[in-house]
Amino acid sequence: MATVGKVIKCKAAVAWEPNKPLVIEEIEVAPPEANEVRIKIVATAVCHTDLYRLFEDTGAAGFPTVLGHEAAGIVESIGPGVTEIKPGDKVIPLFIRQCRECRFCKSPKTNQCVAAWASTGNAAMAPPKSSFTCKGKRLNQFTGTSTFAEYTVVNELAVAKIDPDAPLDKVCLIGCGICTGYGAAVNTAKVEPGSTCAVFGLGAVGLAAVMGCHAAGAKRIIAVDINPDKFEKAKVFGATDFVNPKDHNKPISEVLSEMTDGGVDFSLECAGSVAVMRSALESCIQGWGVSVIVGWTNLEDVSARPIQMISGRTWKGSVFGGFKGRDDVPSMVKAYMDKKLKLDEFITHNLPLEQINDAIEMMKNGKCIRTVLNISTE
Amino acid sequence: MATVGKVIKCKAAVAWEPNKPLVIEEIEVAPPEANEVRIKIVATAVCHTDLYRLFEDTGAAGFPTVLGHEAAGIVESIGPGVTEIKPGDKVIPLFIRQCRECRFCKSPKTNQCVAAWASTGNAAMAPPKSSFTCKGKRLNQFTGTSTFAEYTVVNELAVAKIDPDAPLDKVCLIGCGICTGYGAAVNTAKVEPGSTCAVFGLGAVGLAAVMGCHAAGAKRIIAVDINPDKFEKAKVFGATDFVNPKDHNKPISEVLSEMTDGGVDFSLECAGSVAVMRSALESCIQGWGVSVIVGWTNLEDVSARPIQMISGRTWKGSVFGGFKGRDDVPSMVKAYMDKKLKLDEFITHNLPLEQINDAIEMMKNGKCIRTVLNISTE
Repeated sequence: MATVGKVIKCKAAVAWEPNKPLVIEEIEVAPPEANEVRIKIVATAVCHTDLYRLFEDTGAAGFPTVLGHEAAGIVESIGPGVTEIKPGDKVIPLFIRQCRECRFCKSPKTNQCVAAWASTGNAAMAPPKSSFTCKGKRLNQFTGTSTFAEYTVVNELAVAKIDPDAPLDKVCLIGCGICTGYGAAVNTAKVEPGSTCAVFGLGAVGLAAVMGCHAAGAKRIIAVDINPDKFEKAKVFGATDFVNPKDHNKPISEVLSEMTDGGVDFSLECAGSVAVMRSALESCIQGWGVSVIVGWTNLEDVSARPIQMISGRTWKGSVFGGFKGRDDVPSMVKAYMDKKLKLDEFITHNLPLEQINDAIEMMKNGKCIRTVLNISTE
Repeated sequence: MATVGKVIKCKAAVAWEPNKPLVIEEIEVAPPEANEVRIKIVATAVCHTDLYRLFEDTGAAGFPTVLGHEAAGIVESIGPGVTEIKPGDKVIPLFIRQCRECRFCKSPKTNQCVAAWASTGNAAMAPPKSSFTCKGKRLNQFTGTSTFAEYTVVNELAVAKIDPDAPLDKVCLIGCGICTGYGAAVNTAKVEPGSTCAVFGLGAVGLAAVMGCHAAGAKRIIAVDINPDKFEKAKVFGATDFVNPKDHNKPISEVLSEMTDGGVDFSLECAGSVAVMRSALESCIQGWGVSVIVGWTNLEDVSARPIQMISGRTWKGSVFGGFKGRDDVPSMVKAYMDKKLKLDEFITHNLPLEQINDAIEMMKNGKCIRTVLNISTE
């Protein structure tokens, strides 16, 4: 390709500073260095974690930056030493690397990776390396991906090669929200056949968690949201019961306890709120209830009475649903191709990159599930 | 026996009100009613939960009461309908019942029991039923047991029949602390061979947790206490490393992280402090660390940053180490008889019932591990 080895000038949505609209700018994307892969982004969705960075966790010198981490694209070129990926491959960039060498990667228990920690950091989500500049300034690469751009550069450990027939404007969702929710149910909670589950928060992650509970054989899936507009969609993914906390004048944990004779077997918090995390834990049954923190927030403590755990509840969580990106993302794409995983039903809007601020506004106001930004053609 | 069917007048240590010394009184112990068992207490130990009731969780109309729940004795008589227990049996009273009929008892996942909830209550620990009176007043039966007395009456669902050769002044410890700590390691944490563990708080429960980690094959067991006098004893039970948080000017979780290249695989909080519970969680490794709340306290919230769980740690807890009392206590007694379980090493003092306040003072001041009160002869 004519661009190989050269700086690419292309469009990106730049977050110059927190709490401001993104600005479509021409940025410079450096060629891939050793072990790096440059990707032409075909489609990227807006995820709540992008908004979290823009509006909530705004410190830690993360700006200016290019947000975006739920995407799919085609490899434009590769740097020295890259062996598993070649130009033309369809890929999904990963915000958690999988090096396959560290003790975490070698353990079946986790998808944490030593390289992932170093690359993303838990607080700042601003990796030390960036291939982006704009107007003479370095732009941070959010979570090591930065997909609100026509091209990005990521480490090869953060690239999942997928089925060449996969429609990228659909499977881009597998890059974050779908795996996060679905995996939280099947990998982290390990939802059991015949069990009763509750999912708190019915954004894409929560709906994917509902889908995961359903796939795992849950008998009853209680969908909880303060926005009842979400219930119809939750039904599509397998929810059986619907609760709006605003319809009740007592704690939601009491409502669920009464509905289920003592509490649910599994609860999944997909709202990113410490208050909801507590409610989700308290909604579980004593003895064996498992509550999984799925929503991302870390700006304040989450609390509970010790008796919640002492009486037999388990509180856990995961990132990216516990999926090991390079190994499992291709399988999730295959599941979609085999019609075993729903994706189309999450997509409520398609917009061009130029309208990204509209997508962000819709998400802030709960008016969409997923908006896919169509960045370029395959 | 001459006492069958009659009220027994005997000695007991009565807690008339919180924060006051116990008073040795003559109390009346009613004959066992339907499904009840009257037990001559031979030996009872003082556990921190007795002190928790007396000095910390002093509300909820729990007084006057007879404390004590870690004991062993001989059945004096039985009420109508009791079939599995007969006079003369050696028994350990249980503060958690096992009905064997409810959905909890039928699940291998938990030792919670519907009857246990009803009998002890989580907050008050004052069951509705009592067989004790003194000076015309009803005395609450703490946790449904009340073993600081020469005789007590408990429901048959709260009686474990044990080996007739078992020395009651030793196996009484199996009634609470030993099972609580040992089981937290083997049943709740499910400590794995070759793993690294940390135990916070080296009272009897913590030492039993150390013993449990050792029995489960842990390679490294880090014993943590602010009282270094406890370290020698911890070594006896298998501890390999010893840390006094007072020797360090940084959080203990950082100390343990440095010692273990990222954190321990399993941590057990045996101090009954919400601050220690948080430290124990934070001392676990990301990805798969499991932290178990073993110490009993429920007067305030326990807190953590959500990232602790999101990054792959599991927070859980148990009561009585997850052991189902009627089934598992006899096995634990057998393990002691077979020299597979240490008990003698926990006992630092033996005293008569009359000196119970001395035993309480020693425990408050960390001057003992377990004081066994020798109530009567076998």
